[in-house]
Amino acid sequence: MNYADRLDQAVLTKGNPCLVGLDPHLALMPEEFAAVRDPEATRQECANDVTRFLLGILDAVADVVPAVKPQLAFFEVLGPEGLAAYEAVVAASHERGLIVIGDAKRGDIGSTAAAYAEAFLTGGPGSDPATLCDALTINPFLGSDSVQPFLEACDAAGAGVYILARTSNPSSAEFQTQGSPTLTERVADAIGAWGAERIGTCGFSSVGAVVGATHPSELVALRERMPHTPLLLPGFGAQGATAADVVGGFTEGCRGALVNSSRGILFAYRQGDTANWKDAARLAAQQMAEELSLALSSPA
Amino acid sequence: MNYADRLDQAVLTKGNPCLVGLDPHLALMPEEFAAVRDPEATRQECANDVTRFLLGILDAVADVVPAVKPQLAFFEVLGPEGLAAYEAVVAASHERGLIVIGDAKRGDIGSTAAAYAEAFLTGGPGSDPATLCDALTINPFLGSDSVQPFLEACDAAGAGVYILARTSNPSSAEFQTQGSPTLTERVADAIGAWGAERIGTCGFSSVGAVVGATHPSELVALRERMPHTPLLLPGFGAQGATAADVVGGFTEGCRGALVNSSRGILFAYRQGDTANWKDAARLAAQQMAEELSLALSSPA
Repeated sequence: MNYADRLDQAVLTKGNPCLVGLDPHLALMPEEFAAVRDPEATRQECANDVTRFLLGILDAVADVVPAVKPQLAFFEVLGPEGLAAYEAVVAASHERGLIVIGDAKRGDIGSTAAAYAEAFLTGGPGSDPATLCDALTINPFLGSDSVQPFLEACDAAGAGVYILARTSNPSSAEFQTQGSPTLTERVADAIGAWGAERIGTCGFSSVGAVVGATHPSELVALRERMPHTPLLLPGFGAQGATAADVVGGFTEGCRGALVNSSRGILFAYRQGDTANWKDAARLAAQQMAEELSLALSSPA
Repeated sequence: MNYADRLDQAVLTKGNPCLVGLDPHLALMPEEFAAVRDPEATRQECANDVTRFLLGILDAVADVVPAVKPQLAFFEVLGPEGLAAYEAVVAASHERGLIVIGDAKRGDIGSTAAAYAEAFLTGGPGSDPATLCDALTINPFLGSDSVQPFLEACDAAGAGVYILARTSNPSSAEFQTQGSPTLTERVADAIGAWGAERIGTCGFSSVGAVVGATHPSELVALRERMPHTPLLLPGFGAQGATAADVVGGFTEGCRGALVNSSRGILFAYRQGDTANWKDAARLAAQQMAEELSLALSSPA
């Protein structure tokens, strides 16, 4: 089944559009993970901590949310051992029935993009299919020949991509909102075109867009500009966006967009009523799902 | 010593601005590397082949060129074993006195960019300093808060960055040359500003720009727009640019820019008068150095 239909089914099954960002900031992990704050620890010891922490998070949220998004940077900082932890976390996510979106934001010339597409979506030599992502985030700066290998991977593997259109960070407007049409609008039109031949029976394409939840009015305009594009909305929680801010990204109920929260769920224990980080993460995911369900079921 | 001065010294010592791109396309490797074309081979076997091939290339070119540029995608396609091969190649490059530019083209929100900067430039927990790069390529799409952690890494570790301004690939104009000023011009101005406080005694900054050698007239304009910015010029050889095309990127003799060739050197044996891939790579590097020296010493 193509990515768009698998995702739509997962969202409808869980009844919410929550995406848990797996960003294991080493400095924020609970006290029981001693290696990540021991300057003498080896990379293997740190990577073991990261894996154990994230498997705990997966157990806490797997029956609540439809999807997770591991962020490659926090694994690459631990070198080969970190990349092995990443693969273990992807495989464990699949075992728990979760959709996995690799947050890699890769973008390069065609022959190099093909290697990245193989690495994350279709599988390189000797790789285990369980460690591949369902979808990958990519950066459009280099234009369509840099995107093409990922589109081919979508077709070959039933995978998806989310292309950066309007990011959630404070200085994102520096380049993205300049010009007329703006860079974001040009990218959005390209995303619509790249996705047009990849629309599933659910009505959404396997070619998605990343649009920061921190820009609610632009989100409404971009939803209209890309009617068949599934959106990935970062910026909820720690970055400041609320349930009301993301409503404009959805098409009908909880369909058409995923809302990401990373630190707000993984490190909920730091805010906490509870010392148990797994319980805190589960509660935070449930609360996010409820907030979004409420916002998405209210009459506009 | 800061990156700009180390690079300038290396270029002057070797007397040429050649950068050898370490892009080990598995399908193009010489016949003696059997694992990379054996569908039953493990990732470790493939990674061993890649390491052995690139160490041979390093031995062939180390006394000819000042710098090498490993492309992360071709290592990540082999998973953790590939990333270990990457680290071995970086360390071996340093042992041979070469400047190492990691071609990662990373770009992400601040907290994530900080993890990438640590991974490649300043070192994560338990990492070996010999496996870190001297400089890294990055993508500016997200704006200055995504670049800032890399600039801080430059300051902390005497490292450099090369920011994508105008890429060499065929569809690079789709977004980069749109608007007035164009996206490339806006990025170039930002690169100049980010680099202004990081200028070495050589007169160049540690904040560089990637400008495709496939756009010679734009190269001249961008050299003028960013007078203190060291340029990284991809597109020579396999992508079509000639020595005459890159001349506009230099300031004085072979200073101010590096010219990259990947396939043209690594896989020179495929064109070949010689069956020995190491000899072919060495000859190709020497020939490229001579062509560039000739073009750069001619009166304009």
